[in-house]
Amino acid sequence: MNRILFEESEIKDGVVEFGGARAAHVLDVLHAEAGGRIRTGTIDGPVGESEIIATSRPGEEPRVAARVSHSSESAQPWVDLILAPPRPRAMKRLLPQLAAMGVGRIVLVGAKKVEKDFWGATLLKDENLRPLLIDGLMQAGTSILPRVETRRNFKRFLNDELDEMFPQGPRIVAHPYSKGVAPCATPGRRLLLAIGPEGGWTEEELEILEGKGFAGFSLGSRILKTETAAVALLAVLGRTFDTAATDI
Amino acid sequence: MNRILFEESEIKDGVVEFGGARAAHVLDVLHAEAGGRIRTGTIDGPVGESEIIATSRPGEEPRVAARVSHSSESAQPWVDLILAPPRPRAMKRLLPQLAAMGVGRIVLVGAKKVEKDFWGATLLKDENLRPLLIDGLMQAGTSILPRVETRRNFKRFLNDELDEMFPQGPRIVAHPYSKGVAPCATPGRRLLLAIGPEGGWTEEELEILEGKGFAGFSLGSRILKTETAAVALLAVLGRTFDTAATDI
Repeated sequence: MNRILFEESEIKDGVVEFGGARAAHVLDVLHAEAGGRIRTGTIDGPVGESEIIATSRPGEEPRVAARVSHSSESAQPWVDLILAPPRPRAMKRLLPQLAAMGVGRIVLVGAKKVEKDFWGATLLKDENLRPLLIDGLMQAGTSILPRVETRRNFKRFLNDELDEMFPQGPRIVAHPYSKGVAPCATPGRRLLLAIGPEGGWTEEELEILEGKGFAGFSLGSRILKTETAAVALLAVLGRTFDTAATDI
Repeated sequence: MNRILFEESEIKDGVVEFGGARAAHVLDVLHAEAGGRIRTGTIDGPVGESEIIATSRPGEEPRVAARVSHSSESAQPWVDLILAPPRPRAMKRLLPQLAAMGVGRIVLVGAKKVEKDFWGATLLKDENLRPLLIDGLMQAGTSILPRVETRRNFKRFLNDELDEMFPQGPRIVAHPYSKGVAPCATPGRRLLLAIGPEGGWTEEELEILEGKGFAGFSLGSRILKTETAAVALLAVLGRTFDTAATDI
């Protein structure tokens, strides 16, 4: 945790009290004490620091009270994903990484090679997704929560909803055998990146994506799993499109 | 599996017979039959195709015989890693990804923030490492097996062994707060990349690395877990140093 995040509803009159994993981290990893300051933020809100007012004693259940001072803007999402999801286990590992790397919106689509039983996964319930995404944000030190949506009908989504949902900005489709080159970055425009399933997009799916203006982009001749490819693509494209990737 | 790999000892008079996960993949995923051709390779040797000679029947234990024709060179490793390992579970997931992305040699070092019990992990036994690395190669379609070594004494390794083990080539140390810039690629020279533990390198470790000519490199203000950071760094640096990353 490089930043402890709170729900807005947890902060009352500028003070937050918390236990659990966050408090254990503050006490056992950061070894913070009353009077100390920690990096904090409000989920979907500003970030900053908090001053610790009180802590539980050693041996007690971990518990921290802090006075919150959040006045800076978090690094903003710079990319939205259309993702043909891998299996739930891999997806569960991937979600915090996507949140950490600055993804804003994630639309999980039913490409042909997505396993049918994915759509029944308990992972997709908001109460399961949310903690995974918040973990990623706390790791990265940012606060803007990605939105996750599902669209099982790939064609209908691409043809009927895509342009309204993502009206502007460059569009890139990742494809191992693509010879395309990523378009140049336009400042202030969020990238829309489509990542295919294990086994790849079908020819028909690629045609639909290309028809919708997605430019092909390849990481080269080594073929990576969806999970690895997603992180690799975000890292490479972030060098061009993410201001926080070169901002140190 | 984008390429089925065989141990050299498995190939007899140009023919290989195999069962298990590889045969199941050939029969159930590729739906290959006698006369068909599949992408194959020899571990630490050349790659190419094989022609299927015979297969088990549906319902039988999966089994395939194939005539091997390996005459091309695999994509070569382009980077060696000095890695302060994350926990064994994360390391186990990371190893196939490192193999897939073109890492040649992996030296696991005992940086200060590496958990002490890592060094007793059963993961470190060759019989456990090897299948994970081969999985990564079969995913990527390459054949050169990474070498994994351990050096618990970070200082002694850096001071006494480093220059002999890696006599030339550019050196980069990943560090979130670094302001350094990666050196330009020199064709034919393998990169040496040092990746710190969860929690980062200590000041002293950074000084030793800098003293040994490692240039600082940062992925930006979002702080990533070791596992994510390793994939992200290899992807970004591969665009400069890995000929297979732009070769499609």
